Amino acid sequence: MLVVGLMRLGDQEARLQESFPDIDFKFYKHPSELPIDVQQEMDVLISYHQEVNETFIENAPKLKWIAWYATGVNSLPFETLKEKGIQLSNAGGVHAQQLTEFLFAYILDDYKELKEIYAEQQEKVYNRKRVTPSVKDQHILFLGTGKIPQRAAQVAQILGMKTIGLNTTGHTADYFDETYPISNRQQVYEKADIVVNLLPETVDTRYLLTTEDFKVMNPHTLFVNLGRGTIARETDIVNALRNNSIRKAYLDVFEQEPLDSNSELYQLDNVFLTPHISGSHADNKKLATDIFSNNLKSFLNNGELIENKVNIDKGY
Amino acid sequence: MLVVGLMRLGDQEARLQESFPDIDFKFYKHPSELPIDVQQEMDVLISYHQEVNETFIENAPKLKWIAWYATGVNSLPFETLKEKGIQLSNAGGVHAQQLTEFLFAYILDDYKELKEIYAEQQEKVYNRKRVTPSVKDQHILFLGTGKIPQRAAQVAQILGMKTIGLNTTGHTADYFDETYPISNRQQVYEKADIVVNLLPETVDTRYLLTTEDFKVMNPHTLFVNLGRGTIARETDIVNALRNNSIRKAYLDVFEQEPLDSNSELYQLDNVFLTPHISGSHADNKKLATDIFSNNLKSFLNNGELIENKVNIDKGY
Repeated sequence: MLVVGLMRLGDQEARLQESFPDIDFKFYKHPSELPIDVQQEMDVLISYHQEVNETFIENAPKLKWIAWYATGVNSLPFETLKEKGIQLSNAGGVHAQQLTEFLFAYILDDYKELKEIYAEQQEKVYNRKRVTPSVKDQHILFLGTGKIPQRAAQVAQILGMKTIGLNTTGHTADYFDETYPISNRQQVYEKADIVVNLLPETVDTRYLLTTEDFKVMNPHTLFVNLGRGTIARETDIVNALRNNSIRKAYLDVFEQEPLDSNSELYQLDNVFLTPHISGSHADNKKLATDIFSNNLKSFLNNGELIENKVNIDKGY
Repeated sequence: MLVVGLMRLGDQEARLQESFPDIDFKFYKHPSELPIDVQQEMDVLISYHQEVNETFIENAPKLKWIAWYATGVNSLPFETLKEKGIQLSNAGGVHAQQLTEFLFAYILDDYKELKEIYAEQQEKVYNRKRVTPSVKDQHILFLGTGKIPQRAAQVAQILGMKTIGLNTTGHTADYFDETYPISNRQQVYEKADIVVNLLPETVDTRYLLTTEDFKVMNPHTLFVNLGRGTIARETDIVNALRNNSIRKAYLDVFEQEPLDSNSELYQLDNVFLTPHISGSHADNKKLATDIFSNNLKSFLNNGELIENKVNIDKGY
């Protein structure tokens, strides 16, 4: 059996080879370095590259499983995978810790007014009168109630916040005080002080948030996007921030990535931009390889994936 | 019975008068407005002002209880209080939520490199390669294991951190993985990535941390001071930051307050300064009045304080 990685995994490569001595592993720095004869022979692919498109799959006739080393799988050609019966797993959950840390870094940066205080420090101003708002009893609304939102909601609750979750049916989820169907979201926004998108990109979530969504949010809303940039058009977000339909945004993902230096987002004062790094972590390769190893054991045994299998019909 | 407040309590004044209709409450904007005849008649004092010194107490012969509306009581004349049998309560715990929010605002600002990212945003630089360290498995060492450190340690544990506490005897405390006597602290620093001071000022904590303490901390240490500025001399902190004995500091309290605009701290790059505001909250008066009301009920009943009574011998 041949397993091909389209990126180097550092010390995880030796770990895999030791754990699975009968398997042939080949790792390349980049998809462009993959020889066509290897592509035609590979059974399993490790990747997170947009180069893995329909043509790529057509040229990999023996491929049975793609182990995606990221969470968002939206760039993959789902129809082709379905047609060819190729299984898909992702690294969902690996990023929960880092995303949660960024979420609370953002929220506390805003609520504790760190940027304003730091500006005063630069001016040697000691403003003893500043009273910052508390996050206690603030209502935080999550689009999505899966593994990552649950981890974030757990931390929010310990900090004294009220957690509200939106998902397809409005079913309950751990660490959420209330949950509602996402189709009713425009009636739920009025409860929320903070709105956080953690949804993956699917046909259902693409451009889910419209001008109307931002319009009915509270004007003091802090909007955080750690999911996918395609949840809303950039122009709609820019307008909402410019018209003060919402107070402020912290954005890690964008409709077009990398963000163009001409983006109007760079012109606004009430937005904080991070370059799609909220899931990045030095340990991600190790954690994703933990999932891969568990799946590989099972795959060798009976052809089934047991962890983080993506439902190709649903797209997550 | 006459209860005097040396500051206005807003809507808490009517609340107290309604709850205790038989008591005479008088509130003044500032200690300087207190008439001497009222001072001589008062039984209970609500204050947090440094004007409450030995002379002030001598001119209040009927005073039986000082309800301090702050946590740190170090400015009070303890010997005089003891001599006259005046009881003391403070507002300890009221500030736990805000202090905890500031602590994690600081830590996540540092670990998620928000200031560096924001500087790049100003330059329209989209640096996709940045990988920020995680707080997971980082060791956070608290000087103090009382109510406030316990609240902070609870949040630290949920974020995946390891919590170490220092107190007088090394006794265990809720939410601490390990505890040690504060006298052994120089042997404990090597375990710590983050060192947080939350100790009150007492004769034992004044200038507790010396050059030697900073020297034996890990060079990557993040030092946070949310307790009292007199835990260390400012020159020792400046030198530790300048010599890179420690990596960085977030300071809310200072040896001299307000911080002088000539302070060398303003010259350093690896320090973030907030103007002793980490305990300030719009709700503090309400929360401190909750404690005061409970104590007043008990005080009227049997002369005893039941909540947040300060041990005058220990000083906290």
